[in-house]
Amino acid sequence: MARSRSVGAEIVSSYTGAPRLAVPGSHSALQLLRGARDEGVEAVLVATRRQYEAIYSRFEWLYSRAVLLESWSDFTEKRTLEKLRELNAVLVPHASLIEYVGADKLVGLELPILGNRYLLEIEASWDRKITLLASAGIETPRIYRSPGEATTPVIVKLPGAKGGRGYRAATPETLPRVLEELRQLGYSPEEVTVQELLIGVRLYVHYFASRVMDRVELISMDHRLESNIDGLSRLPPMLAAQLNLEPTFTVVANQPIVARESLLAKILDYGDRFAAAVEKETGHPMIGPFSLEGVVTDKLEYKVFEFSGRIVAGTNVYMGQPAPYGSLYWETPMYMGRRIARELRLAWERGLLEKIVT
Amino acid sequence: MARSRSVGAEIVSSYTGAPRLAVPGSHSALQLLRGARDEGVEAVLVATRRQYEAIYSRFEWLYSRAVLLESWSDFTEKRTLEKLRELNAVLVPHASLIEYVGADKLVGLELPILGNRYLLEIEASWDRKITLLASAGIETPRIYRSPGEATTPVIVKLPGAKGGRGYRAATPETLPRVLEELRQLGYSPEEVTVQELLIGVRLYVHYFASRVMDRVELISMDHRLESNIDGLSRLPPMLAAQLNLEPTFTVVANQPIVARESLLAKILDYGDRFAAAVEKETGHPMIGPFSLEGVVTDKLEYKVFEFSGRIVAGTNVYMGQPAPYGSLYWETPMYMGRRIARELRLAWERGLLEKIVT
Amino acid sequence: MARSRSVGAEIVSSYTGAPRLAVPGSHSALQLLRGARDEGVEAVLVATRRQYEAIYSRFEWLYSRAVLLESWSDFTEKRTLEKLRELNAVLVPHASLIEYVGADKLVGLELPILGNRYLLEIEASWDRKITLLASAGIETPRIYRSPGEATTPVIVKLPGAKGGRGYRAATPETLPRVLEELRQLGYSPEEVTVQELLIGVRLYVHYFASRVMDRVELISMDHRLESNIDGLSRLPPMLAAQLNLEPTFTVVANQPIVARESLLAKILDYGDRFAAAVEKETGHPMIGPFSLEGVVTDKLEYKVFEFSGRIVAGTNVYMGQPAPYGSLYWETPMYMGRRIARELRLAWERGLLEKIVT
Repeated sequence: MARSRSVGAEIVSSYTGAPRLAVPGSHSALQLLRGARDEGVEAVLVATRRQYEAIYSRFEWLYSRAVLLESWSDFTEKRTLEKLRELNAVLVPHASLIEYVGADKLVGLELPILGNRYLLEIEASWDRKITLLASAGIETPRIYRSPGEATTPVIVKLPGAKGGRGYRAATPETLPRVLEELRQLGYSPEEVTVQELLIGVRLYVHYFASRVMDRVELISMDHRLESNIDGLSRLPPMLAAQLNLEPTFTVVANQPIVARESLLAKILDYGDRFAAAVEKETGHPMIGPFSLEGVVTDKLEYKVFEFSGRIVAGTNVYMGQPAPYGSLYWETPMYMGRRIARELRLAWERGLLEKIVT
Repeated sequence: MARSRSVGAEIVSSYTGAPRLAVPGSHSALQLLRGARDEGVEAVLVATRRQYEAIYSRFEWLYSRAVLLESWSDFTEKRTLEKLRELNAVLVPHASLIEYVGADKLVGLELPILGNRYLLEIEASWDRKITLLASAGIETPRIYRSPGEATTPVIVKLPGAKGGRGYRAATPETLPRVLEELRQLGYSPEEVTVQELLIGVRLYVHYFASRVMDRVELISMDHRLESNIDGLSRLPPMLAAQLNLEPTFTVVANQPIVARESLLAKILDYGDRFAAAVEKETGHPMIGPFSLEGVVTDKLEYKVFEFSGRIVAGTNVYMGQPAPYGSLYWETPMYMGRRIARELRLAWERGLLEKIVT
Repeated sequence: MARSRSVGAEIVSSYTGAPRLAVPGSHSALQLLRGARDEGVEAVLVATRRQYEAIYSRFEWLYSRAVLLESWSDFTEKRTLEKLRELNAVLVPHASLIEYVGADKLVGLELPILGNRYLLEIEASWDRKITLLASAGIETPRIYRSPGEATTPVIVKLPGAKGGRGYRAATPETLPRVLEELRQLGYSPEEVTVQELLIGVRLYVHYFASRVMDRVELISMDHRLESNIDGLSRLPPMLAAQLNLEPTFTVVANQPIVARESLLAKILDYGDRFAAAVEKETGHPMIGPFSLEGVVTDKLEYKVFEFSGRIVAGTNVYMGQPAPYGSLYWETPMYMGRRIARELRLAWERGLLEKIVT
């Protein structure tokens, strides 16, 4: 695909003087601010007045400017964006920003984004996400089209079921019986989806696609804790049986984790493949942080069920610390927030700013 | 409440020369010693001969003096306290010290304590603890006075039951039936306590109330591992069913954890509120480390079931490391043991010693 | 036992110039390379061409030489070993190397090994391992010879059962009934093994036996995540019941953990005892990294079910970071990979190279 110049590259080329890292409130803002500080990059906090008062006003030494909003709907207003451009702002997007502003508005945002903004459109569609992973040659959970195909435990998903209610699990042996039961409940085999159930250790892997260094770096990994499932599975069995609650999966916290070193062969390869697939699909290179999220099975397969085209909050576990894998590329302690600020600094110093934004 | 001068302020005002950090053996002594070393503060180890030989004799480079006891009952003897005062000792209390010496003796101890010693009396009473949390406006598990009130899963506690034996769990729907069953077993509804059952991710949050900086800092968080429950809940289901063991909850180990950044709005607020409530209740400000211990539910509420008015052992996970949140206040790597030593150093340098002790 | 000079001591005494750390690919190679870099020790990567291309070629700044193999069977060829000796190589063995090359070949390897190579023979036999632990006075899971002896939950192991299939769990109360059931299935009480079932928090403790400092250091601890058991135990109960899968225990990842400080009395003692027992048993001192792997019960006993006579992959959790306990011995940040490189550097500087190899 022919590459057109991005709106971000356009804008950044007009900046005079050093760029500033524009950090939206919440999600991973604190490590981004700390990272900028570590790299001697000026940071601009962008936050609602409420976020500022509750959290970020306590850490003013970490940024030199704050753009305060009455509400996030003000963010895309001309006045806000003008102010940010005057500050030579380069924006780091994250999931909270997308939630506040909407992916569609970010795609067209008149501000340089450190990252590939075109990926946002792909992420809005489940089908396009899975297609992207598949086209990259990354293993995903299998969909079985007939019961006889199933070689792993499966989850049987009902049409229109909300939050997993009524989903059934089965082994290849019990699957025909489960499908028969569902048929008697009125679900035809054509209606239900029989998907490989991933059972193993969940691994959220954090990468950084560097245009300055021309490589994809592995920075860290995390393990998520979710409510209520992580409380439910630790309830004394007798109490759990008395409650019989539906599990929920709200991400609440993250913990550090490292993988078996032999798994890195696949994990590093997946990082490269993902970046290449993004470039092929969007016509623009992968830039900056991204994440692959999957499960390692007892056969040491790494099956990816989700990706994020930007920084994930799990990187917060190493805020201010040398992340285990980040330390393999850099002499100084390196964590994701700092890595992003370093890319901005290096790109500026080497005249490559246009390469690290879209 | 009118504030009287504390015994600790009295004593410390008579010290000439730099204060020394008196670190009682066990609990979090090693990180306190390492923290003192990092800050250039002299440390005095206080330990039984047995603790010294088993553990602390291996790390003599971390402290300049050791006061060795035959047993912990010697600690409150005049001779010991005199020696410590001669060394300009400022004591850091922790749960092991309270266990060894008794809260009542510590309240009147003739030694400056880095912390609010009056809190010890409140902590000795469950009612006063919950009242303190409530008066601070911190959410705690709800007590339902009638079955109709219950809107969450509940635990039904029997009078005089030991270690949770016979406790029942229920949902709002099953609660009337459970109460009826208990009534038939001879428990009247007036006798049983129906308390909100917290199901989610346990979060132990570590704060530092700084009198020198005039703020409450968030330093780190941990996740606890307990025996046998964390082994039980990981037993293969078939074996677990064959055993049907009573769960136990002995804290054995701790792991690092970070919370969703949006939760910090509440977590930071709770820290401030707790410190303010302590000051109101005891007539003395909150000083130094404390901890709130609770559960984050799938609605992202943080419900606190317990607090500690001093350093908790969970801070050990970041011993010698830059704790994720501590790094947001300080240029240098910061963990709780070091933060305490820094407060002592700064207070000494600025003539504020009396403010950081009681 | 009279100590004979080891083959490694023989070879290393002929080295002229500084030794190089020979790091075999996989397992913990990355932290070993990073550790060498931190200590200013030159590293030699030894890896297959495939490992090199998939992983280690990305981190070339961490080593000065690479010895690439077509396959690991080339490792023990004369040509390879000659090349390594010409490079003044001192080899760090790990579990992957043993898997690739075989313990028997490593025992006789014509290359200095940083560690006690004679331990490899003991580790090849389950009986000798348990005997070594017992002779050290380290608590291991009890074997009950008659049902009446059992005072803890037990696992009843069947003769010839594969991967735990058919194993039964019991309490002291239910044990007679379980044995009776097994008798009816044709298993005589003489055939089955009744072993204490360890339920609690798993703790993998990492030590370093230093010949230069003449002490055993505690560096760090980790917690393992295994597939599928850690996924199984977190499955919503209803799905788990529908699947009824056999648990498997493939180690996939590791997480940081710290133990209650009071447990260190036992943990430190066990480290010393293990090193002493190894010296008594093999006639050569314990050298370098080793690990004890056990469970802490709710009575705060630490029962050890396994050991490793060399570096374990769980040390990777602190790669490039100050490990909590390592920081108690050293001013600089210290993790296992760096500790090993430091021992090599110090031994070389002090003329003690022969003492740290076999």
